[in-house]
Amino acid sequence: MQDILTYGDDRLLKELKRAEKPAYVCTIASSDTGAIEGISIAGASAEMRRYTPPADMEALFYGEAKCIPGVAATPDGIPSPVIIAMASLRAAGFPIFVVDAGSEVSPQTPYFRLGSTPGRSLVTGNAVEDVEGLFERGQHLGHHLAKLADYLVLGESVPAGTTTALAVMLALGMDAEDKVSSSMIGGAHALKYSTVLQGFGAAGIGKGTLARDPLEAVRCVGDPMQAAVAGIATAASRSIPVMLAGGTQMAAVAAVIDRLGQADMGNICIGTTRWVREDADADLVGLAEQAGCPRVYAADLDFGESRFQGLHPYEAGLVKEGVGAGGMAVAALVRTEITAAELVASVEDVYEATVVPMLKS
Amino acid sequence: MQDILTYGDDRLLKELKRAEKPAYVCTIASSDTGAIEGISIAGASAEMRRYTPPADMEALFYGEAKCIPGVAATPDGIPSPVIIAMASLRAAGFPIFVVDAGSEVSPQTPYFRLGSTPGRSLVTGNAVEDVEGLFERGQHLGHHLAKLADYLVLGESVPAGTTTALAVMLALGMDAEDKVSSSMIGGAHALKYSTVLQGFGAAGIGKGTLARDPLEAVRCVGDPMQAAVAGIATAASRSIPVMLAGGTQMAAVAAVIDRLGQADMGNICIGTTRWVREDADADLVGLAEQAGCPRVYAADLDFGESRFQGLHPYEAGLVKEGVGAGGMAVAALVRTEITAAELVASVEDVYEATVVPMLKS
Repeated sequence: MQDILTYGDDRLLKELKRAEKPAYVCTIASSDTGAIEGISIAGASAEMRRYTPPADMEALFYGEAKCIPGVAATPDGIPSPVIIAMASLRAAGFPIFVVDAGSEVSPQTPYFRLGSTPGRSLVTGNAVEDVEGLFERGQHLGHHLAKLADYLVLGESVPAGTTTALAVMLALGMDAEDKVSSSMIGGAHALKYSTVLQGFGAAGIGKGTLARDPLEAVRCVGDPMQAAVAGIATAASRSIPVMLAGGTQMAAVAAVIDRLGQADMGNICIGTTRWVREDADADLVGLAEQAGCPRVYAADLDFGESRFQGLHPYEAGLVKEGVGAGGMAVAALVRTEITAAELVASVEDVYEATVVPMLKS
Repeated sequence: MQDILTYGDDRLLKELKRAEKPAYVCTIASSDTGAIEGISIAGASAEMRRYTPPADMEALFYGEAKCIPGVAATPDGIPSPVIIAMASLRAAGFPIFVVDAGSEVSPQTPYFRLGSTPGRSLVTGNAVEDVEGLFERGQHLGHHLAKLADYLVLGESVPAGTTTALAVMLALGMDAEDKVSSSMIGGAHALKYSTVLQGFGAAGIGKGTLARDPLEAVRCVGDPMQAAVAGIATAASRSIPVMLAGGTQMAAVAAVIDRLGQADMGNICIGTTRWVREDADADLVGLAEQAGCPRVYAADLDFGESRFQGLHPYEAGLVKEGVGAGGMAVAALVRTEITAAELVASVEDVYEATVVPMLKS
């Protein structure tokens, strides 16, 4: 498969190529963890991060957000990876289904509601409301979607999602410290780790103490997306392949799924970007192995030669992944004749249509 | 096709038989029209009618409602037609997708949210909020679902839906007076008509004055389901067949779709029950013809010999239809080897599991 970096066997890539009716499902949520100063740059400010998940979904449906102008961006104006997802979805022609697991701001798109309560900050040690309900409704949705689709790509948009991922993986006893990716250079590992320790203290848990109770780990220190996507993937994996589209956030989801023991892990893989796969400040492959999901496919995108300076920061290690960008890019590369260079050119077209007008205004 | 009463050509029945991945989509909404005394028996009381749409959806997913005990029923305890939909869905194995177009009480199932505002009473002449948004989001949903499914059966659960149907059809200039079906014997035509006239007065419209503006007719005197289902069906009909599953409520939806002029009406049919098809106090076929949807398929179910007295009132003309019961029964009859008598036996099994325990308690 050209322009895809493969770790583990490529069986699920071949099934993706053969799939007749694949679908893209993107789950959004917000949490007060995302409001912690310095923890995320998924949005122009802590206040604006509330709009990033719905803005991403609106951009997927309408070509630009409705709740904010253009598309979500970092404080420095680097655009959300939604532009990669948009270009990939256009190339691959997948149907899109939005799932709200608990977003503070609802998207102005059609969406599945699985939950309506945003996550609390993980420092409370009591982060997610009705975690069993989210998982159960996710299972129902996955079961019914898998009767129609023959392959699911599951993305997410959750600010501060790598911090809740770190917390859950540590609670499960994984060797995850300093291994999660970040939208920031260097990874903000110290802030993330101290935040997690605060949450552990509040919940009265420690590293590995919830190894056998993954939903309790999500309830204490995770986010609503994790429970919903775990449910969708668990049910769907019993009949069709599932690609968890994201970076180290999806390693945490994979670990939850694996520890719950109700899924067919042989039908689950992770799809991401080269920027996460090769992140020297993280270890996605190692986390995926520990999560019982030893298949990682990364789209070999390169923005270094882009005609837009605004895309170059991706090569410096900013943003990297989100909104299922890497997984959908993998899907587009597998299912069409498009090359990575051509996909980058399509991303540039989206940039020109959505981001350039914002810069001019 | 055995045990199906066919009006018009049976091409879309044949396509249903051939479909590989059909899906059932049920849209719910509530409106203050449903709170008018004597207008509906879809619920044990006006207060309980608020719970009928979510209770119906919960029963489809979980085998019984969660927001009320058992399943919804009339004031006399006649069970909701959801029991027919449940038996039919079990036989046919369709995936189920719930759409909330504006239900006062949300279902405890996964559901698509297309709208969150229940309808006002049609006597206000200003019944539906954001009718264009409902139609537009419905179109997006229909477009994406039609990439996965190759046939959609679209049901509804909306108390007092035949009154809003009558109002919309009259506003469109159809000869609909005394022709809509009802869950009540005799049809309550006088009450419905006087209610419609009140709404017309408040909206400053008359019979036929909105013949060229069907969404405005829905906005003034319709309900949120009509706009949402019109959108779903319009977009989906451009690539796959669509069965509007319901009685004269769906004739109104078909008329809205037809007058909007954006659908492929050759891909749209109505599926219902014999009780509606043969209702001497109504004229579904005549309304369907006027609506530009001259294909009506009715499941020839007979509860007259049922071992449960509680089902006999269907033969006397009570309840008749709802929750896509007739259309899903047609789908089950077309796609399986089951006969109408066997389907009735399955309905009795559902009755025994869900209604009998309610009677004993």
